[in-house]
Amino acid sequence: MLKAIYTERGPVPEASIEAVKVDQPALTSGQVLIEVLAAPINPSDVLTLTGEYGMLPPLPAVGGNEGVGRVVEQGEGVSAPQVGQTVLLPVGCGSWASHVVADAKGLIPLPNEADPQQLSMMTVNPPTASLLLSEFVDLQPGDWVIQNAANSGVGGYLIQLAKLRGLKTVNVVRRDSAVAAVEAEGADLVLLDGDDLRERMLAATDGKLPRLGVDAVGGAATDRLASCLVEGGVLVNYGAMSREPCQVGALNLVFKDIQLKGFWLARWFQQASDEQKMKVFGEVASLIATGKLKARVAQTYGINEIKQAVAAAAAGEREGKIMILPNQAQ
Amino acid sequence: MLKAIYTERGPVPEASIEAVKVDQPALTSGQVLIEVLAAPINPSDVLTLTGEYGMLPPLPAVGGNEGVGRVVEQGEGVSAPQVGQTVLLPVGCGSWASHVVADAKGLIPLPNEADPQQLSMMTVNPPTASLLLSEFVDLQPGDWVIQNAANSGVGGYLIQLAKLRGLKTVNVVRRDSAVAAVEAEGADLVLLDGDDLRERMLAATDGKLPRLGVDAVGGAATDRLASCLVEGGVLVNYGAMSREPCQVGALNLVFKDIQLKGFWLARWFQQASDEQKMKVFGEVASLIATGKLKARVAQTYGINEIKQAVAAAAAGEREGKIMILPNQAQ
Repeated sequence: MLKAIYTERGPVPEASIEAVKVDQPALTSGQVLIEVLAAPINPSDVLTLTGEYGMLPPLPAVGGNEGVGRVVEQGEGVSAPQVGQTVLLPVGCGSWASHVVADAKGLIPLPNEADPQQLSMMTVNPPTASLLLSEFVDLQPGDWVIQNAANSGVGGYLIQLAKLRGLKTVNVVRRDSAVAAVEAEGADLVLLDGDDLRERMLAATDGKLPRLGVDAVGGAATDRLASCLVEGGVLVNYGAMSREPCQVGALNLVFKDIQLKGFWLARWFQQASDEQKMKVFGEVASLIATGKLKARVAQTYGINEIKQAVAAAAAGEREGKIMILPNQAQ
Repeated sequence: MLKAIYTERGPVPEASIEAVKVDQPALTSGQVLIEVLAAPINPSDVLTLTGEYGMLPPLPAVGGNEGVGRVVEQGEGVSAPQVGQTVLLPVGCGSWASHVVADAKGLIPLPNEADPQQLSMMTVNPPTASLLLSEFVDLQPGDWVIQNAANSGVGGYLIQLAKLRGLKTVNVVRRDSAVAAVEAEGADLVLLDGDDLRERMLAATDGKLPRLGVDAVGGAATDRLASCLVEGGVLVNYGAMSREPCQVGALNLVFKDIQLKGFWLARWFQQASDEQKMKVFGEVASLIATGKLKARVAQTYGINEIKQAVAAAAAGEREGKIMILPNQAQ
């Protein structure tokens, strides 16, 4: 079996990672062997490779945090899941691999007939989008939400989930070429980022101001979102694509009572009850399995192309996720 | 009578303001004439003159927001306050004046024997310091608080109020020459701002991390305070002496769950109940009148020197407030 292993972290995320042949371990009692069908590259994976993420596994490590696979062998004493069953890979298992060995107990079975690429993206971005919309402001149908980096993975899911909940979205992007794809997700409004963002938004929303802002860019872009919010609004940051700290002016903080908070799915996951987790993951799994929630895939790569895949994910200016299909001829 | 009147706003705060002789209006029923004893210049007054404040009075306007005076004449039907009584000037009355006419009803009498300069500063900075300590984090005796601009008016009151409440303060200043004065206020720890702020703080607090950060500087200084807070800590901004937007990195927002909020006394005042207001102002008035809470005065000016006084207040690098004594020979 092949695993994408890295031994060092540094500014070039693909520098150290490569597909390495490893011996397939003998299954012990209660384990299954899973052939990985699809595993995406998320921004958090790139930051883990550069060492900028909030949690870093000991080295050497296998890349990849989420994905789906198909059970190909059962160890002793395993009755379920059956061979052939599609399952969600355990989060953080090192999903950029041809195969993963896991305890059968606790594996979540997924519909065999659903698109494995879509299912493979369900544990990170869709819950992030769902929780950004629910954890900070008690939004009501008809309310507006504004986000930047709207053409990101989380951005696309947020547009679709907002629409399903009766919310309206203002979507800010940094380049013209991203507008059409964001509109195709169901965006109510797409605007190019810039200094007169608030005026252009107000002209299009008939004077309505969002109560929630969602920022993944940082720098001056954060303050431009803050300027678009209603007095007392909440701005939530979950990323810093500009690699600059978030900026908010005293005008927005002091005189407009805007709050700036951060969201990290890993912390929410540690603190949430099992019931809360089941509710969120159950909702997104069922929406994805039935095709009501989906993300674009920009390009697929084999496990042997892991360096090119990581470089592509880190480069930006893509239309969709970079996806590893470890067992598919490229 | 003389009033410090300005007719324009602009980048040079003292440009338009000057002491103008105005006719003393005849007192109508229920009014009193108050001779102003002392009125300070606050940062918010300077920002009102430059047009950068969140609330701006129509022009022409009389400068000054707070102060104390002595009743010198009663209009018809007034029994109290008596002639000779020290009173708090109504907030926002235009206190940079030799005299103020006010309705007798609602005037707050103050102890005649207390220092009028100290009393004149009681409505803006001390309630701000008190509420910064109470409105955002439920602090317990022994908890640490960190603030920058610790040598400001609010900063000094915050140190004294924190001590009275059993809290410990880390005080950050931007220049060596400010350290001694901040230590004299009762600071537990004074540190020069800089990139290794967190490490120097931890060495001195025996590893204790503040739960509350208070920022009046903005720019990269905000993020340095954020880095000093415990996970889940709250950072409150109430000013931007650097004139730069507050910066907080994703590391602090997302991975450390730091929240950034703003505080504006004027908004609190609009939203608070009469009981809440009485509690806060009663506490600070009694502490000031008994000498337990005080602020340094850097220099006093007559009303005819209003341009120099405003310029001095705007210049920074002072040790204390700039104070107008409109009826005292300079």
